[in-house]
Order: sequence, then C-alpha cells, then structure tokens
Amino acid sequence: MAVQEIHRPQNAGQLAVGSIITTIHSLPRPTTFMLCAGSSEGETELTAFDGALLKAGIANVNLLRVSSILPPGAKHHEKLDIPPGSLVPTAYGSITSDVPGQTISACIGVGLSADTYGVIMEFSGVCGAKQAEDTIKAMIKEAFTKRNLPLVKTMVKSVEHKVEKIGCVFAAVPLWY
Amino acid sequence: MAVQEIHRPQNAGQLAVGSIITTIHSLPRPTTFMLCAGSSEGETELTAFDGALLKAGIANVNLLRVSSILPPGAKHHEKLDIPPGSLVPTAYGSITSDVPGQTISACIGVGLSADTYGVIMEFSGVCGAKQAEDTIKAMIKEAFTKRNLPLVKTMVKSVEHKVEKIGCVFAAVPLWY
Amino acid sequence: MAVQEIHRPQNAGQLAVGSIITTIHSLPRPTTFMLCAGSSEGETELTAFDGALLKAGIANVNLLRVSSILPPGAKHHEKLDIPPGSLVPTAYGSITSDVPGQTISACIGVGLSADTYGVIMEFSGVCGAKQAEDTIKAMIKEAFTKRNLPLVKTMVKSVEHKVEKIGCVFAAVPLWY
Repeated sequence: MAVQEIHRPQNAGQLAVGSIITTIHSLPRPTTFMLCAGSSEGETELTAFDGALLKAGIANVNLLRVSSILPPGAKHHEKLDIPPGSLVPTAYGSITSDVPGQTISACIGVGLSADTYGVIMEFSGVCGAKQAEDTIKAMIKEAFTKRNLPLVKTMVKSVEHKVEKIGCVFAAVPLWY
Repeated sequence: MAVQEIHRPQNAGQLAVGSIITTIHSLPRPTTFMLCAGSSEGETELTAFDGALLKAGIANVNLLRVSSILPPGAKHHEKLDIPPGSLVPTAYGSITSDVPGQTISACIGVGLSADTYGVIMEFSGVCGAKQAEDTIKAMIKEAFTKRNLPLVKTMVKSVEHKVEKIGCVFAAVPLWY
Repeated sequence: MAVQEIHRPQNAGQLAVGSIITTIHSLPRPTTFMLCAGSSEGETELTAFDGALLKAGIANVNLLRVSSILPPGAKHHEKLDIPPGSLVPTAYGSITSDVPGQTISACIGVGLSADTYGVIMEFSGVCGAKQAEDTIKAMIKEAFTKRNLPLVKTMVKSVEHKVEKIGCVFAAVPLWY
C-alpha cells in the first residue's frame, strides 16, 4: 500500500498523519441543524443575552453568526449534542430591551425546498411572538420567490418575553455535524 | 511503511483515517478571493439584504463575517464556484434604507502589498458610488501607512442604489479555497 | 496495516491523504487563548478600529467574532503567534467615538471554573477603564451564578482612550490552536 506525500498549498491548514503532511481544503459544511429559542432577564444586556442562550440550550458554545443558508441534505434534530466551547455556525435573531413592561419577541424560520438547500430567516422586535412568526413566514416566502424555487415546508420557532428590568429574547438555528 | 497513531490533544477536531485518529490544528487559511457587489429592494430589511446577496452571486452560502485581511498568496478569481450552504469567510459592507428616493452605496476594496498579505476595507453609506470608492481608497492608503508597508495595487468594487421602498446595497470580498 | 476508504458524507469537508478520501467532522475547537487590548485614532471609524487592532497585536488576521466560551482545557498564552490572514475565533468588545475629549474604554474578561470551561465577557462604553473592569467582573460573576458554577479565577484586560478626532478602543480574547 502506498500513502504518498501530497501537494501542500502554502496557505492551507496542516494536518499531520504519521509522517505525512496533508491539507484541509475548506471549512466543513454543516450536516445537521436544530431550532431553539429562549428568553432571560439580566443585570446587563450581555448577561441577559447569555441567560437567553442558556434557556435556549446553546450557551456553552461559541456562536459564529452566519447569514443564512441550510446546506443541502442537512438533517433536522430536536436537540444537538455539541461539546462545550465548540465553534458553532448559527443563524440567529435577538433583541434586548431595558423598558419594563415591554413585550419583545424573536423568531427563527427555515424554509425548505424539495431536494436542495433551505433558507433561514430571523426576526426580532418589540411585538408578540405571533407577529414575529407571521413576519418570518412572509420573509421565507419572499426569499423563495426571489429564487424561483417552490417552498415545500416551513419550520419556525419563536419566543416572547415581557421585560422586567433588562430582558433579552433569542431564537436560532445552530448548524452542526 | 508505518502510519502511526499520533498525539491527540483533548480539544482538537477529530478526523478518522481508517483506524488512525488524528487532529486538525487550526481553521484552514483561505487561498482565493473575489470582489462582488449587488443591490435589491425587499419587503423587509433582511429580504432586501438577501436580494442584494443574490445579485452579488453569493446568496446561497453562509457568510461568516471577517475583519479583514487577505492571506498571503491568495489568488484573485473573477468568480468563485462555492457549493451551496458552505461556510464562507467574507469581508463586507452593507446598508439598508427605507427612505424612498435616497441614494445608498456600498464599496469593498483590497489593498495589496508586493509580496505579502492584503488589507480589505469596506464602506457603506448614504452617498453615491464614486464617494464610496474614494473613501475606500483613502482607507486602504491609511491602513498601509499605519503598517509602514508600500501599497502596490488597489482593487475596488462598488454598487449604488436609489431606494424605492426598502433597499439594500452590499459589497464583499468572499475568501475561499 | 490496513488504511481503508471510510464513509464520506455528501456535505462534509474533504481531505485527500494519498488515495484516501476522508472527512472533517466539525470545526476544530480552539486550544489556546490570550487577552489583548489596544486603542488608536483614525481618519474613519474602520481605520481607527484597524489601528486599535494593530496596537493590540491582532490586526493582521481575520477576526471571526464569537460569543463567547473558553473551551475546556484551553491554555493561556501571553502572546499567540498566528500566521497572517488566519481565521481567528475572537470574543471582543470595541467602541468608536468622534467626540473630541471623550474618554472611551473597552474591557475583556475571562472567568474560569475549576476543571471545565470558561466564560468570556466583553464591555465597551463611554467611561474609564476602571469602570469597564468593574462591569466585566460583575458580568462574569452573574454568568457563573446563572450556571450554578463556582468562579475560581478571573482575568481581565482593558484599555482607555481620550478621543482626539476619531478614536477606537478594542479588547479581545483571540482563541487559537
């Protein structure tokens, strides 16, 4: 059996396999996804955000914000098991408010085509969850119309929160492997 | 020939090669780039943004926003062929406006040194494309002056749009492999 | 010895090892980190930001902004040696001001648990460095309280700047390998 030293472009990531140096040619495309959402109060905007991530079950990783396509063939999971500290490509919407009594909402939606990729849309605002969901559904329809693609299925997840002191809502589609 | 099991740090990405477990030591550095720009109307800010991405030819991937260095040796392409849903490190500028009749522009620029890396600058604002380009050129000069590096070549791409209802302009340098 | 062709999911990154095609299963988790901060004046907001990155020693890479967990076992370095143009997952806070005479500050902090991961918090505002550091320390305490985790150690780094024309402060935890 022959395992040969292969060409190594100057700028590529390196990987040692025994005495073989080889290369990684791009960032790996995600193959799974979930929808999640959460809300929280905090002493500051960022800790309220952190609290909302905790409620959404995604606080202990590093969110890499992406804009926002579901890779072809990606599989939906109710819950993804992601090691803490991982770099997680994530499409999300979030809003923080320090106006007591105000209702804020965030919604994430995925539009799926028959046999190809999906489009992810996020929305957050000073409104109820129903309005956020209606907005997302219209946005997904518009994205598919712009692509001349039939929209086969829509998945949405939203969260609504009445602000006490400093509140945050967060809705996301983490992409994983 | 011996292909040995090598040391596996606890937190690194894992890769299975037959019975060998090995590691990826960092995110791979991009080796190619293009300049692109586009504009669009939309029913919402995000769908206008999505439409501008479509016009720019970069809507069907996941943009990972970066700040903003061209890796040494990266090759310019007129058009990059990127699989849908890929994670694409991208420097970009964008602005959305809902003021009918307003002119908005976005510009991206790359300043190249003789034998090393490049600096990417983005700008967007309520102005014409010419002003956006002039701003970018001045920004690139400043970045090279700050680095005590001779600026050998500058590449820019811009887009201008007159808002009808909700308009968006977008200019980018996607980095790829 | 047998090195076999292994299963290759359709959407995963590819890696050629001799005649073997194999896959990368996720983005690699960072294993090292540093704290850095810097300030600068600039002719524009973005060049002031670029100057602050230069002062912080992190200007010649591509920052991928993350939100914001220190992976378990990550090692602290005073200075990381990162190749130019690399994709660097980074938690950061930054503020730019064009109000001459105004004092702006940015602070980054890492809270560490006994045997597991850490939480990174960032803050920036129109205030002195001392106030930014106090804010960060309170935010880290709150993040650990929300997680029911004992906070074992806190590391902070801050920078303060008095604006001349257009000023920027930047404080960050770059994560690397």
